[in-house]
Amino acid sequence: MNFEEKIIAYPPVHPGTDRTFIRFYSGEPDLKSIFYPEGSENLPQRIFVTDTTVGSLPALSGFIDNFRGENYSRAKIENGFVGTNGKDVLAILGAGEPFKTIESVLQIVKAALDNNAQRSAVFVGIGGGVITDMTAFAASIFKRGAHCELVPTTLLSMVDAAVGGKTGCDFDAYKNMIGSFFPAQKIHICPSFIQTLPDFEYRSGMAEVVKTALLYSKELFEKLESYPEILTDKKNPLVEEAIKISVGSKARVVEQDLTEKNIRMQLNLGHTFGHALETCAGLGVITHGDAVAWGMGRAAELSKKIGLCTSEYTERVKNMLSSFGWCVEPVHPVLKNKVQNPSEIASMIFNAMMKDKKNSSSKVRFVLQSQICETVITEVQKEDVLDVLR
Amino acid sequence: MNFEEKIIAYPPVHPGTDRTFIRFYSGEPDLKSIFYPEGSENLPQRIFVTDTTVGSLPALSGFIDNFRGENYSRAKIENGFVGTNGKDVLAILGAGEPFKTIESVLQIVKAALDNNAQRSAVFVGIGGGVITDMTAFAASIFKRGAHCELVPTTLLSMVDAAVGGKTGCDFDAYKNMIGSFFPAQKIHICPSFIQTLPDFEYRSGMAEVVKTALLYSKELFEKLESYPEILTDKKNPLVEEAIKISVGSKARVVEQDLTEKNIRMQLNLGHTFGHALETCAGLGVITHGDAVAWGMGRAAELSKKIGLCTSEYTERVKNMLSSFGWCVEPVHPVLKNKVQNPSEIASMIFNAMMKDKKNSSSKVRFVLQSQICETVITEVQKEDVLDVLR
Repeated sequence: MNFEEKIIAYPPVHPGTDRTFIRFYSGEPDLKSIFYPEGSENLPQRIFVTDTTVGSLPALSGFIDNFRGENYSRAKIENGFVGTNGKDVLAILGAGEPFKTIESVLQIVKAALDNNAQRSAVFVGIGGGVITDMTAFAASIFKRGAHCELVPTTLLSMVDAAVGGKTGCDFDAYKNMIGSFFPAQKIHICPSFIQTLPDFEYRSGMAEVVKTALLYSKELFEKLESYPEILTDKKNPLVEEAIKISVGSKARVVEQDLTEKNIRMQLNLGHTFGHALETCAGLGVITHGDAVAWGMGRAAELSKKIGLCTSEYTERVKNMLSSFGWCVEPVHPVLKNKVQNPSEIASMIFNAMMKDKKNSSSKVRFVLQSQICETVITEVQKEDVLDVLR
Repeated sequence: MNFEEKIIAYPPVHPGTDRTFIRFYSGEPDLKSIFYPEGSENLPQRIFVTDTTVGSLPALSGFIDNFRGENYSRAKIENGFVGTNGKDVLAILGAGEPFKTIESVLQIVKAALDNNAQRSAVFVGIGGGVITDMTAFAASIFKRGAHCELVPTTLLSMVDAAVGGKTGCDFDAYKNMIGSFFPAQKIHICPSFIQTLPDFEYRSGMAEVVKTALLYSKELFEKLESYPEILTDKKNPLVEEAIKISVGSKARVVEQDLTEKNIRMQLNLGHTFGHALETCAGLGVITHGDAVAWGMGRAAELSKKIGLCTSEYTERVKNMLSSFGWCVEPVHPVLKNKVQNPSEIASMIFNAMMKDKKNSSSKVRFVLQSQICETVITEVQKEDVLDVLR
């Protein structure tokens, strides 16, 4: 058909904010002094969002009491709760990956709407990656974009989820299938929250720390390698150092490539395998970190398989992962109950990779390494992928 | 609490695309030649989305037949339908404002996901504003951002909804409460679709044309003013001229201010009143255009009330709206059945305005005019607003 054409050219914009202030606090977390500092008035309305697990921490109890309202009873924290202190709003959602749904995101939107929130409102996510991702997503779609601040309470969300503006929720059994890029205006990091973490969650976060070290800090990698006891020694100063190095490294990457057009893809080291494992295991069955750690082992094997790295690199990575207690076998034990035949498992993992949002064609793209801190992004033949999965 | 601070500063980005190609086609709409031009290969996967009304148009029947697949029967168009031609996907949703829900948006996402769509997929919305807004919203959140093209089939979506990158759906009885800014890469305008429109939809679109004329084209306003017969004379060349002027005016505004930080707000002339009326009437009870037309009359009264314009301006606008058959009374007839007392109606409208996403504080902001093409954005006292509503 014939046509006349007119072009609209847009100047680029900043979704949400043009900068993120990341604050590292020392001492016990004190949300009241962070969000209601003395002498501050005319603060915008805040919509605080957390989950039943974080909402039960002693560190939050005084803060939460301010939102008790008329119908409040402490028991309500078990089943979710929305309260207001007259101006600001607190929503407490169910905890964990099974609640990372669009329904939870809409609960946040509804809590804001029911309390007359405007576009100027600040949505504050206090929790692990599930809460920070969903709160930021809700902020990004509320009236086409409100404001967002985050208080990551797990190691994983401090070093990874909260930093970098990726938001979203799961959909139809696929992780983070819907979402947006919407950086927080402020990220409040209180490393002492880590002392409240169950071991499995702490370990899950440590996998992203190891990933960052592999990608950007040989020095951190060596420190972690020589001190696997860090896994049971949460109070060691190395933990806080590792957090700062990880956050700093991630910040340098995302400020160059917020929307993951190029170098940010490096941060997916271990994730193509890891996400597929999470999907196949069923959401919430294996922690994100354990899945990514397994994925880093598979990526190291795949790097060797296609001749990219030496056996020494692969062995060193696998030894390190193994000393931290992560599975470095081709078939992860969580899948063994599902399907008996390793070839079937390998195909299942491969099919899940094909649906992963990070793949943009029918080949699967991997983040691989020729050595520590030397990263390559490349597409790999299906057969080579299957070979490291069985 | 004490803290150390680190700042991430982001370069600005283009959500979705850095430019929109708007194509005006002459002759009968032929989707096959637009989307499957001869000699084209290696096209990305497309997820076509339309509704049962548009899907029933003779102009689309050949196109739709390509997606019939195994379980297709023509009757399915009544109840929604997803089909594939082996690569591309067609989803036909329920028609009209009551279907402008997050559930419909998720149906689009699911249709894409079930057909292995990647981030490189192009979501193509073919329909009125409901379909184009939802399809673009789905594209914007699918894997944090796929691609989008639009084929507006109503006058309203040609001159307004499809142009400018606003996406979204209704939520909890509030219009467009969730959404994003995500411009389409291409907008395909076939003015001849207008010949298939029912009169009430054509009139609804004409309200946005009048709005554009009031804001940016005295010449177009005068032409429309002197030829109210345009309302029954869809084939008149003035219609196509009005479309091009309206699209061009809107394009010039949104390319300066995509995310509505300043001058784009002008486009809300009549909308603060209009959205509130739509909300109070119940979604789908009054057309968007009829509501906005009534809102433009109220805005003209409010401009006079606060001493911004002359009586002549207000009378001229109201006469013009009236000659097009739009209500210029303080109380719109669609509300008269709901509440008997004009003061109650005025309060109800005012309360709905307070929830509208375009208001960022407790005062309500209005787009008003001192004369045609002279626009002012200002906050107005509650009492003055109530005065023009009763």
